[in-house]
Amino acid sequence: MPRFALLIEYDGAPFCGWQRQSGQPSVQAAVEAALRRLEGDAPGIAAAGRTDTGVHAAGQVAHCDLARDWDPFRLAEALNAHLRPAPVAVLAAARVADDWHARFSALERRYTYRLVARRAPLALAGGAAWHVRHPLALAPMRVAASHLLGRHDFTTFRAALCQAASPVRTLEALDLEALEIPHGLEVRFHLRARSFLHNQVRSIVGTLARVGAGAWAPERVAAALAARDRAACGPVAPPQGLCLTGVGYPRDPFA
Amino acid sequence: MPRFALLIEYDGAPFCGWQRQSGQPSVQAAVEAALRRLEGDAPGIAAAGRTDTGVHAAGQVAHCDLARDWDPFRLAEALNAHLRPAPVAVLAAARVADDWHARFSALERRYTYRLVARRAPLALAGGAAWHVRHPLALAPMRVAASHLLGRHDFTTFRAALCQAASPVRTLEALDLEALEIPHGLEVRFHLRARSFLHNQVRSIVGTLARVGAGAWAPERVAAALAARDRAACGPVAPPQGLCLTGVGYPRDPFA
Repeated sequence: MPRFALLIEYDGAPFCGWQRQSGQPSVQAAVEAALRRLEGDAPGIAAAGRTDTGVHAAGQVAHCDLARDWDPFRLAEALNAHLRPAPVAVLAAARVADDWHARFSALERRYTYRLVARRAPLALAGGAAWHVRHPLALAPMRVAASHLLGRHDFTTFRAALCQAASPVRTLEALDLEALEIPHGLEVRFHLRARSFLHNQVRSIVGTLARVGAGAWAPERVAAALAARDRAACGPVAPPQGLCLTGVGYPRDPFA
Repeated sequence: MPRFALLIEYDGAPFCGWQRQSGQPSVQAAVEAALRRLEGDAPGIAAAGRTDTGVHAAGQVAHCDLARDWDPFRLAEALNAHLRPAPVAVLAAARVADDWHARFSALERRYTYRLVARRAPLALAGGAAWHVRHPLALAPMRVAASHLLGRHDFTTFRAALCQAASPVRTLEALDLEALEIPHGLEVRFHLRARSFLHNQVRSIVGTLARVGAGAWAPERVAAALAARDRAACGPVAPPQGLCLTGVGYPRDPFA
């Protein structure tokens, strides 16, 4: 069966996350249902990142095996027609090798988290950002972030139910982009790693937000990391600010 | 009665536009209802720009007269508390002179229109952009836009029901910002003028999109302008791509 890679964008709000769960609407089930409108016996699909309930994606990648040798352009068009009106879009499809795997062939995942600090509620970006009402001090957040860069045991920043065999990960990038907005500040956290632990990004952002609020000194983040203790973590940032922006492979299948 | 300026952000989707209309939800009515929770007999308010059904604002400005000499910070906080859960937020309030007028004191209005060209539907930005499925040629659109800059009779680009006394306006800026997006192109049109005619921005964008699609030569836009005939206009772009981003005054009341 020919294998296809799919580049997928979705609004996480109406979904229980990427992964199929009985009785709940998942992105995976939506895409699989669209595939089965094309081929009734299409098997299940695998994705590069299992995003949680409410988390968005601008560049999720999955692969599927189909019986027919679809033209990739027509495959994407047909899937989008069947996905409507769910907020899930196939940006591109590509024929890949039979041993190519959306998850295991991936070399890096990229996430962006949007945090908006201002007094007024978010009338426009409420579904795509975390809103805090206190000011954020950017410089201490950047100092704190620097403690997390590189290869560490991230036990402090992983969900209790994380199933990864090892808590060691290498955080290749954790950049804070500051955007001046009227009467406030938006901080976009750009993170990049080969892979992430469950809730790692939201645990890091929630902890850095404590530093931005002045409640934590930057050094407390270094101490929390060294503690390798989930109890040392700050609050977990809410899901709607998070977006899986891209997945890197040895060769971009969609180029 | 002390006069206050209000800086207002809203999602236009659930509203019939800024202006109060009996039996329909308007942004003006939402803000006035919140004001009357503070002062039962608060008079009606005036805004700098009367946005249409479905049009958003990141920087609408209105003024209101209140009996009490409110602390501006507390006024904004109280209004936001009463506006909840409507997608309307008061970003700032400011005490202004009694003869200051949100509409008549304004020196310029700024609008941004978002147009996204790609094959796949918009799963993330669908409520904030116009989606076209054909590619857009940027260079001819920029040539066409240059014909519209400056002082002109914009009869071609105004709604039949426009109530302005004169169709002459001076378009101070019409900049096309191009953003590469995965498998597509986003064009942001940034427009600035002392004032705009009814539907002027959406008429201009819809016409420029014909040029971007290759259906119109750039010179046809110059001819359409010269024709001073509504029938010479291209299609009117849909409202959800449009946002009133700011209003300029001799002195920024919120600075």
